[in-house]
Amino acid sequence: MAEKLRLTAVGVGPGDPEWITVKGQRVLAEADVVFAPCSEGAGESLALQIARPWLRPGQRVVTLPLPMTRDRARLEPAWQAAADALVATLGAVAAERGGAHGAYVVLGDPLFYGTFAHLWRVLADRHPEIGVEVVPGVPAFVAAAARAGRPLATSSQRVAIVPAVYEADERSLADLVANFDAVVMLKVGRALARVRAALGRLGLANRALYAARVGLPSERVALGLESVEEDEAPYLSLVIVHREEKP
Amino acid sequence: MAEKLRLTAVGVGPGDPEWITVKGQRVLAEADVVFAPCSEGAGESLALQIARPWLRPGQRVVTLPLPMTRDRARLEPAWQAAADALVATLGAVAAERGGAHGAYVVLGDPLFYGTFAHLWRVLADRHPEIGVEVVPGVPAFVAAAARAGRPLATSSQRVAIVPAVYEADERSLADLVANFDAVVMLKVGRALARVRAALGRLGLANRALYAARVGLPSERVALGLESVEEDEAPYLSLVIVHREEKP
Repeated sequence: MAEKLRLTAVGVGPGDPEWITVKGQRVLAEADVVFAPCSEGAGESLALQIARPWLRPGQRVVTLPLPMTRDRARLEPAWQAAADALVATLGAVAAERGGAHGAYVVLGDPLFYGTFAHLWRVLADRHPEIGVEVVPGVPAFVAAAARAGRPLATSSQRVAIVPAVYEADERSLADLVANFDAVVMLKVGRALARVRAALGRLGLANRALYAARVGLPSERVALGLESVEEDEAPYLSLVIVHREEKP
Repeated sequence: MAEKLRLTAVGVGPGDPEWITVKGQRVLAEADVVFAPCSEGAGESLALQIARPWLRPGQRVVTLPLPMTRDRARLEPAWQAAADALVATLGAVAAERGGAHGAYVVLGDPLFYGTFAHLWRVLADRHPEIGVEVVPGVPAFVAAAARAGRPLATSSQRVAIVPAVYEADERSLADLVANFDAVVMLKVGRALARVRAALGRLGLANRALYAARVGLPSERVALGLESVEEDEAPYLSLVIVHREEKP
């Protein structure tokens, strides 16, 4: 029966449940089990909250706890445990029904800064019998541009995407702005003060777009970083800055 | 009645009709008129083909012809004519019904290298009375990664996105690969031979991902550029290359 285990990673988009793709919605509705990663100690995963409207009443949901850390020595066993739990769950369903299809919900897109790449690698190592498919999703920076009504890029323009929290060097931001028409900083969170100061010195702070929880009821989208309080920037907030006034 | 004209730009994704968002599908189903840009002399627009399954029987579709050129002197009057035609069409509907809602279909996402940014600018100038909203879509490079099963980026990685056809300088590609974990080249088309040669000299041609018409019946996704024939690379084909073997 092992070859009848299937897993589909579904990008649910960054916030508005209607930003999921039609295919993602269909996969969720059809899945035997819906899997959701959840941070240890946190509440329901955001991806699962976004997916909720598309689940069947009584549909089985299994959360896979993952530590909030960058420490690979702690993450790797957690990924292994998650992969094993996922396959054991699907295996039990398949034993009854002759096959099992799981959906794994991911915020945004599964392969664009999502954690699914790690789970997939571990799954392929430990459980090569499981068939995996990916349904793409709308990344947060794309949705942020839509909500703000600001073009990201046109024709010949170049875009750089960097995780701000890892970009310690202020000079690197100046280099990015010099070489790219649009710079997208993801995972701004605690780096907001640093990003704002650096963009301020470049004369770009007032034209930068700040977006957090885009598409959720608590969405915050602001043009100019001055009005954004430091303590309100969640980990997944982002900043988009264009070199030219009119992109 | 003028204030009752609404236009929603809908990103339909790059190919598979099921990659449209649930919101995009709903907007298409509800719209009084569906507008589609079309290249002069070409057949039905690809965005419209992708949207077709979601249209109502007999739903009104208006195509807006645009020249295939980068010449701003020819493009600008074409955008103005398209904006005027669009507003005239919605105005006629509104005169009968007291309001009108149009959907404008765009390949991929409306604000990520789409042509909608130009139309929107001209609309805002000439017809500020029209209310515009944007429904984001899945960009082609995100869908290509999903189809190929290759992560685009994780954790601290940096991504550069450039339109290959405008990147004439081979050194710039070497710089990009040196500074970014993943380089996404859009609009490869006629630049394929140049991109392949440059990546070959960097020792990266065999690990680059080529994708064209992703999600369409004629989809072509290949790992390694050797097997891709030059004359089969359409304008909107793309190449994704990672600096490291395992992203």
